[in-house]
Amino acid sequence: MSAINIQEKFKLFSEHWTPKKVGELNGQQVLLAKLKGEFIWHSHEHEDEFFLVIKGTLQIELREKTITLKEGEFYIVPKGVEHKPNAKEEVHVLLFEPLSIKHTGDIMADITVENYESI
Amino acid sequence: MSAINIQEKFKLFSEHWTPKKVGELNGQQVLLAKLKGEFIWHSHEHEDEFFLVIKGTLQIELREKTITLKEGEFYIVPKGVEHKPNAKEEVHVLLFEPLSIKHTGDIMADITVENYESI
Repeated sequence: MSAINIQEKFKLFSEHWTPKKVGELNGQQVLLAKLKGEFIWHSHEHEDEFFLVIKGTLQIELREKTITLKEGEFYIVPKGVEHKPNAKEEVHVLLFEPLSIKHTGDIMADITVENYESI
Repeated sequence: MSAINIQEKFKLFSEHWTPKKVGELNGQQVLLAKLKGEFIWHSHEHEDEFFLVIKGTLQIELREKTITLKEGEFYIVPKGVEHKPNAKEEVHVLLFEPLSIKHTGDIMADITVENYESI
C-alpha cells in the first residue's frame, strides 16, 4: 500500500450515494461517497457510523434533531438511531464503519448498494 | 453528541505525541494528535493504524521504505509492522484505531502515553 490521496480518489467516480472503499482495517472500512439530494430514513442495528465532511455541507436528519456538518466536521450516528442524510448541494464525505454494515440497514430500496466497490 | 469540528478540537491542546480522543465507535476510537520531531520505532501486534494528515507533511518510516503523507492523504500501517512517524515541522493527524491499542506497542518509553484524554 502507498499513501492514499482523498481528492485523487474522489476524481475516480461521480455517482451519488454509492460509497467506494478506499481502505480496510481492524474489521472496519474507510469509504468515500458523493451525496446529493435526500437519502432514505434507515438505521443500522449493530453499527455506529462515522461521517466526516470533506467538501460541502451535509445535514443528517435524526428523528428529534438535525445535525449540520460543514467541511472538517464529523458526527457519529449511534447504532440503532434512525437517520436520513440530506445534501442540498453535492457533498463529499469520508465514512468509517464496520465491514458488516448494510447501506440502507434492513431496508432494501432502489438506492441500495449491496457491495461497495474498491477504488 | 453534536457535530465535532476538527480545527476547533486542535485548538484545545498543544502537546506533541499525545493523542486526544474525540470519538468512539464500534470498539474503535478517533484520535487527534500533533506531531513534531521523531517518534520511536514500534509496532502494534494486533492493531492496524490509520493516519490521515490534516495539516503538514508526515513521514512514516517503515523498515523497507518511507511513506510521505501530505495534507488530505492517509496510510494504514498494518498490524505487526514496525514504524516510526517523523515530522520535520508540526503535523496534525487524525487517527482511527482500536480502543485496545497501546501508544508505543509493547515498548514503554518516556514518550509513552498510557491513557488518551478525551477532549
